Amino acid sequence: MVENFAAILLSCPPRMKQAALSKLGLRSEAPAISWLMEVALSRPQLISLAAGFTDNESLPVADAREIIDDILRSKKYGQPALQYGSTAGDPMLRELTAQDFRLMDGVLDSDKAYSAERMIMSNGSQQMLYMVTEALCDEGDIVLVEDPSYFVFLGILQSRGIRGRGVRLTPDGIDLEHLAAVLEKLKRSGEIRRVKMLYLVSYYQNPTGSTTSFAKKSAALKLLRKYEKAAGHRIYLLEDAAYRELRFQGDDVKSALADRNHADRVIYAGTYSKPFATGLRVGFGILPEPVYTAVSRIKGNHDFGTSNLPQQVLARALSSGKYETHLDALRKRYARKARVMVTAMKQYFPKEVTWWEPLGGLYYWAQLPKTLRSGVKSKLFQTAVAHDILYVPGELCYVEDPARPRPDHEMRLSFGGSKLENIQAGIERLGSVLKKMLKR
Amino acid sequence: MVENFAAILLSCPPRMKQAALSKLGLRSEAPAISWLMEVALSRPQLISLAAGFTDNESLPVADAREIIDDILRSKKYGQPALQYGSTAGDPMLRELTAQDFRLMDGVLDSDKAYSAERMIMSNGSQQMLYMVTEALCDEGDIVLVEDPSYFVFLGILQSRGIRGRGVRLTPDGIDLEHLAAVLEKLKRSGEIRRVKMLYLVSYYQNPTGSTTSFAKKSAALKLLRKYEKAAGHRIYLLEDAAYRELRFQGDDVKSALADRNHADRVIYAGTYSKPFATGLRVGFGILPEPVYTAVSRIKGNHDFGTSNLPQQVLARALSSGKYETHLDALRKRYARKARVMVTAMKQYFPKEVTWWEPLGGLYYWAQLPKTLRSGVKSKLFQTAVAHDILYVPGELCYVEDPARPRPDHEMRLSFGGSKLENIQAGIERLGSVLKKMLKR
Repeated sequence: MVENFAAILLSCPPRMKQAALSKLGLRSEAPAISWLMEVALSRPQLISLAAGFTDNESLPVADAREIIDDILRSKKYGQPALQYGSTAGDPMLRELTAQDFRLMDGVLDSDKAYSAERMIMSNGSQQMLYMVTEALCDEGDIVLVEDPSYFVFLGILQSRGIRGRGVRLTPDGIDLEHLAAVLEKLKRSGEIRRVKMLYLVSYYQNPTGSTTSFAKKSAALKLLRKYEKAAGHRIYLLEDAAYRELRFQGDDVKSALADRNHADRVIYAGTYSKPFATGLRVGFGILPEPVYTAVSRIKGNHDFGTSNLPQQVLARALSSGKYETHLDALRKRYARKARVMVTAMKQYFPKEVTWWEPLGGLYYWAQLPKTLRSGVKSKLFQTAVAHDILYVPGELCYVEDPARPRPDHEMRLSFGGSKLENIQAGIERLGSVLKKMLKR
Repeated sequence: MVENFAAILLSCPPRMKQAALSKLGLRSEAPAISWLMEVALSRPQLISLAAGFTDNESLPVADAREIIDDILRSKKYGQPALQYGSTAGDPMLRELTAQDFRLMDGVLDSDKAYSAERMIMSNGSQQMLYMVTEALCDEGDIVLVEDPSYFVFLGILQSRGIRGRGVRLTPDGIDLEHLAAVLEKLKRSGEIRRVKMLYLVSYYQNPTGSTTSFAKKSAALKLLRKYEKAAGHRIYLLEDAAYRELRFQGDDVKSALADRNHADRVIYAGTYSKPFATGLRVGFGILPEPVYTAVSRIKGNHDFGTSNLPQQVLARALSSGKYETHLDALRKRYARKARVMVTAMKQYFPKEVTWWEPLGGLYYWAQLPKTLRSGVKSKLFQTAVAHDILYVPGELCYVEDPARPRPDHEMRLSFGGSKLENIQAGIERLGSVLKKMLKR
């Protein structure tokens, strides 16, 4: 069984002779998230600290029921909610989202970079990441990513034959010196012409919890701009703010869009999955031209618009204040879960294990001694699963990069989906597995 | 204003110098459907016989409200409905859909070709068409399509640099002799190696209303198989059954999957948008290996699963019988609308205009004398819009094909979205425009 997990996770698509699959079809690997979600859903006895689920208990079921009842009772709104909407998404939701966003970044309502006209709703922010990648990158192009980065995004790159290059990450965001060095090296090799964007999960990063400050984002944009001439085209910053709303310590950080000198190089991807309800699958992007036009056309070809009813639910949650109330409670909830996890790690993990302190989000990034492998094929991972405890192996979060071997001694631990007692029990179990492994 | 429509519709993406867009990003054209939907939504005075909306009045608002209330009141089902599901979709909905499908095709429950295990839920069947195309086709590959075909699918092909080749259509489905001739020609030119699939909108086709019989589908599969050796790989039939449930005359036709000799070459795309509610955006595919695996991985990268709540609504609509009841009423409704449209066409259209009789679906395909252009830039289209009447120009439904010039003398007229009195008034208006044009 345990062996099977690794087999499934690492398997290639069935390369049947004469299968007629496209290059993309052949390349697409089993996304680790699908597999991890299925393992977690199908093995109720297993404590999963792997999946980035939000907390079942926290889901706004009563709010959603009340809102949907209101919508569907309404003569005016009932039918439209079950009808096609427009490709870019519900105008009211786009406007409310833009308003909210301007408030967060502290900019004027008249700021065009934050206009609802630049916004496209998507099926979670995941689809936005996919479509932006489609719009910008050809096979062989290069995307700079944090090292480590969000593994499903790495899967998108891999499936499309796009090369990733890692930029080192520190507890407070990307390492600008390393970014400069990577860009310079790419310039020298001539490969800078293939660099299309830098992808940052800038808030409470997946997987490390690290947050990149506004000053760093701004400096990164300046650096990218410096290399545009050598690239022969624009180099965008794709800011994935999936966890931004899940802040539980410190102040919010402005998005890269607030950098007035470079707003036309920023693509911002946000979501209502994490702060409200994952099952609704509503995310959004704010995009500069010509990316906006390209992505809206791609969206037309994908599905000509995200499901309407979930969008209506969110619009009403925002306008009624239910969203804000829910989010306040959710932040407290995750803050508590994070505390429980870190307390348990201090208690049960061997002293050789270290981690960064996140100020929000869903994850701790536990770093083991480099000699202790944590990957899918490792003794540690397999023993952990055998003890019914699941984590995301760090190796999955690293892009293939010729500049370094793939690190394999870390674990992403999510406190999002588990109950408090399971977080504690899970860390205890994992701690005893780790101790056993370190003794060997 | 009218000129603008054509400009928007025919415009290319902004080819900013140094824009960094990918080939796909540059190629993606404004999907006609997005534009038509927006025109229709934004101009309430306009009678649109263009968009494939379903009927607002027919939407199952009360059913949906009752079902959602049940789900969200339930301790057991409320939270999971707002949580992530699995990438392939809700297991119950997949099982119920498979059951329904087996009933329609009259096959045994044990028939593996119809297993829920082969099914993936998608954001409308549109996303399924997109993902299947991604999984099978590289740039430069060839897809055979009906001539004319569904214009958004043609947009997918165009955006991905995939070549289409038209197969003539008759009032009762594709012309097998022409299919054979097209295949033979491609074999002779060596291009058969690039042919990946035949795309058929097999029930009440969009745009013509034509239905391809089971015997014809089976014969087409046999023909495709015959050319596999020359192609060096499998050639699939992608059966788009979006309108299958909207039958209002005659008997249902078995899907191509029922051809036991070729079921492993059939990809079936279905949807709940048309038969239940467009706004829910839930469709599905049944796929043979290795396409199933490739598409499920692509789905993981797109959005790791369609919105859960709409899927739960559909599962309960199916299991409660509400779906069937709704569908019966819907069929009668569309039958009546089709009658109103055809009666009005007989009364108001000049005698030179002819059409095929659909047995279901949402469309009439009006054929004008070949000298009367109906395209986006034509005097006829612009005069019609100036008279607040919108149709889908036939030219949009034809793939670029070196074997023939693009026909430009037809109109797709939808009776789906409009009220009875608007169908009649719209056809009357269009009739008087047509008469004026033919007199010139």
